[in-house]
Amino acid sequence: MALPVETFFLQQDAQGTLQSQIQQMIAQGILSGRFQRGEKLPSTRKLALHLGVSRITVTIAYTELLANDYLSSRGRSGYYVSENAPSPPNFTPGPDMQDSVDWTRAIGQRFSGGVTPRKPQDWSQYRYPFVYGQADKSLFDHANWRLCALQALGQRDFDSMTNDYYDQDDPQLIEFIARHTLPRRGITAAPEQILITLGAQNALWLTAQVLLTQRRRAALEDPCYHALRDILIQSRCHVTPVRVDRDGLPPEAIPPDTDVIFTTPSHQCPTNATMPMSRRRALLERAREIDAIIVEDDYEFETSFLRAPSPALKSLDTDGRVIYVGSFSKSLFPGLRLGYLVGSEPFIREARALRASVLRHPPGHIQRTASYFLSLGHYDALVRRMGNALHERRAKMEEAIAQNGLQIAGQGAHGGSSFWMRAPEEIDTKILARQLRARGVLIEPGHSFFGGEDQPQNFYRLGYSSIPATRIADGLQALASEISIMSKAGYIPA
Amino acid sequence: MALPVETFFLQQDAQGTLQSQIQQMIAQGILSGRFQRGEKLPSTRKLALHLGVSRITVTIAYTELLANDYLSSRGRSGYYVSENAPSPPNFTPGPDMQDSVDWTRAIGQRFSGGVTPRKPQDWSQYRYPFVYGQADKSLFDHANWRLCALQALGQRDFDSMTNDYYDQDDPQLIEFIARHTLPRRGITAAPEQILITLGAQNALWLTAQVLLTQRRRAALEDPCYHALRDILIQSRCHVTPVRVDRDGLPPEAIPPDTDVIFTTPSHQCPTNATMPMSRRRALLERAREIDAIIVEDDYEFETSFLRAPSPALKSLDTDGRVIYVGSFSKSLFPGLRLGYLVGSEPFIREARALRASVLRHPPGHIQRTASYFLSLGHYDALVRRMGNALHERRAKMEEAIAQNGLQIAGQGAHGGSSFWMRAPEEIDTKILARQLRARGVLIEPGHSFFGGEDQPQNFYRLGYSSIPATRIADGLQALASEISIMSKAGYIPA
Repeated sequence: MALPVETFFLQQDAQGTLQSQIQQMIAQGILSGRFQRGEKLPSTRKLALHLGVSRITVTIAYTELLANDYLSSRGRSGYYVSENAPSPPNFTPGPDMQDSVDWTRAIGQRFSGGVTPRKPQDWSQYRYPFVYGQADKSLFDHANWRLCALQALGQRDFDSMTNDYYDQDDPQLIEFIARHTLPRRGITAAPEQILITLGAQNALWLTAQVLLTQRRRAALEDPCYHALRDILIQSRCHVTPVRVDRDGLPPEAIPPDTDVIFTTPSHQCPTNATMPMSRRRALLERAREIDAIIVEDDYEFETSFLRAPSPALKSLDTDGRVIYVGSFSKSLFPGLRLGYLVGSEPFIREARALRASVLRHPPGHIQRTASYFLSLGHYDALVRRMGNALHERRAKMEEAIAQNGLQIAGQGAHGGSSFWMRAPEEIDTKILARQLRARGVLIEPGHSFFGGEDQPQNFYRLGYSSIPATRIADGLQALASEISIMSKAGYIPA
Repeated sequence: MALPVETFFLQQDAQGTLQSQIQQMIAQGILSGRFQRGEKLPSTRKLALHLGVSRITVTIAYTELLANDYLSSRGRSGYYVSENAPSPPNFTPGPDMQDSVDWTRAIGQRFSGGVTPRKPQDWSQYRYPFVYGQADKSLFDHANWRLCALQALGQRDFDSMTNDYYDQDDPQLIEFIARHTLPRRGITAAPEQILITLGAQNALWLTAQVLLTQRRRAALEDPCYHALRDILIQSRCHVTPVRVDRDGLPPEAIPPDTDVIFTTPSHQCPTNATMPMSRRRALLERAREIDAIIVEDDYEFETSFLRAPSPALKSLDTDGRVIYVGSFSKSLFPGLRLGYLVGSEPFIREARALRASVLRHPPGHIQRTASYFLSLGHYDALVRRMGNALHERRAKMEEAIAQNGLQIAGQGAHGGSSFWMRAPEEIDTKILARQLRARGVLIEPGHSFFGGEDQPQNFYRLGYSSIPATRIADGLQALASEISIMSKAGYIPA
């Protein structure tokens, strides 16, 4: 039987090339059982005409399907669904299921309902995206990343891509981090003191599981990275939020019964404060005094475009008290999900065992690609280029903020990629964000960075890592005008 | 100052192309501060001569470094370290640290010391690798995987690669699984009932965290996948091992106070038993009777090359009681770390929230690449090709096993990629494996698949997914001869 050409159509919103769309359409027709073995396909000429594509496109798609044995060709008589083509299952999906499980009972532990806010996935569709932590297409070195990925996909690297590493990591990436990345932060570490993680988030999570129990106490910065608060709440340890000042976490305010101190000395999240060297030493002293472990999230050290970054807290640590969290998610892109932990061997051993149980290891291909990108110098070149662009944007931000009478609450002396802002007292920035969204402006309300019940309502964060410099002035003007409208209307915090 | 050509040398064991090695060598010299801004590099001719490579190789490496602003060129006078080149940090790594933390106290929870055995990473160096679950270079469709990865690295897919998805997944992969993959297992599911995971391991781990607490009971197959036992031990729930028979897990042996049943109906791990349809229905009935949740690890359904796979347990589930675990790690490659969970929405919601806290989401690039590989039909073509190769190897295995008088304990009627074997009573297969390793033969001792104290010592697994068909006969002969030597020497189980 010949398959009528009318059964073939391209979807309007399909992704990929035309050739791959045709290939997909036929493969799926066969896999789903709509096209049966032995059935004849339309000629390339006929199908090309019907779909409005060039004949060579159809021919290449057919050739690919021949190679995979989905189709067979019988000389001049044309293309047929191959006798060896995969067959659809001979059973049909069952009836729609009626869920009769009492999930309130069946679920033993709840994890939903945390403070981490949902952010718009379609941020790039907005004209003024003052979003934080997404990759900027115009700055990222896509071409070289692609080349490195391609190299990591080659025959030579087949094992590094496909192998089950069990609890281990790509030795090439580990070696690079130990020999090149860490020394630039002043840190000396052996390979067995390093563990690759699925981003900084995963590193913080693993650390919290290993170090904290229901009987232990964690001190964390207030305000702080909201996902860290979720992690600690889930671990059910005692949590003391410590209010930060313009120099970051004040050591003397850390309670003496603290077991683990979480801090972001390079750029405090979200206030951007950089901890001075004297306070870094005082913090280490305080930790020694109360026998606490410090977890240093070396957040955004690479965006120090105004002044050279300070050495990491870990580099001053003489008694193994600091666990260091590094990440490539911010400087490369967050979808990469690649970070690392550095710490004493007994700690790394437990974190490694837990990671193995939770997910084994981060994908080999991702590790090897990053290893090439780093070792060929592309990473440092990218960081420098991004620094230049951020520097320019920051100047535009400062100018427009001043012109529009907006108030900065924290900006960081070393650089960064965001401003921590304070709106007038009467403004609830959640409402402000909603109003602004309708005007094409995305900002991040600050509530979820604060712990406790009485979260300030009037803070917000303005990221400038994804907004073009040319749009900053207009975006901030719209922001200022909305604040002014809301102030006049006398919005009351909800 | 000119950098003397003698300071440049290629490492013997370096990876990557010559060009990238030269590029790395210079970038690292600059980043570490050995090469200073303004210093002159050897001419391309001189360096090529010194390293014994072609001049064009050096020229391309220099050109790449020019593009990244590591080098600058001054017309005819040659190449210099650029004035804009990244500078090394102006602090030196601190003194070696003396670890003075009491880690016995500082570590709140231990995860090391599980039963999951360490396996040789260098398995591909052995002549007779009867290993399980690693990718076979000769079977994998590397060329098409590479093309799909390349497509997923393109400009069109920039967002899917780089974006922070927060707790979400690549919608294209989710849609494909919902519309094409699951229907082939008889399963109907909406996108919000699917969660992408870092392999089946991660899916099982998430499930255990959501469903189990210290007060709940899990029933699991005995023997079973050792990593699952580690996951359950870490969750501190009560665990009942249920001895499997030739049809897999016997429903009537599951204790009435069980909350969660873990099972592998397609191919029991490690015995390869396929659960008959009648028992699948009985298992569902038993679960309903005692109000338990079933976690179905649809392990190796794709290696059903002898008979068509049975529909998944999940496809027979009319009351939402079955949570389904799928994986691409076995059929594509384990280093991919990609799997998925299918279940009722309230369950998926909690698993999603936990995953977001632990690692956010599997890397976007990996998800998109898999989505192309699946939708273009490469995946099914690969599964079919692998099935043919496994079929051939299995016949060779059966022949050599019979010739050498070895004893099969479980082989699976549908296919699979391993035999579950029984050595004579007096043989400890851990010792056997060690002896064989010296002869170039890798086998997997069976101890760690069993729970409890009195683990049988004489079982082992023979994988045939990574050993060439031509080496099977010799490998099994060596195995048989070693067993015979050990039997005569009267080895006593340790």
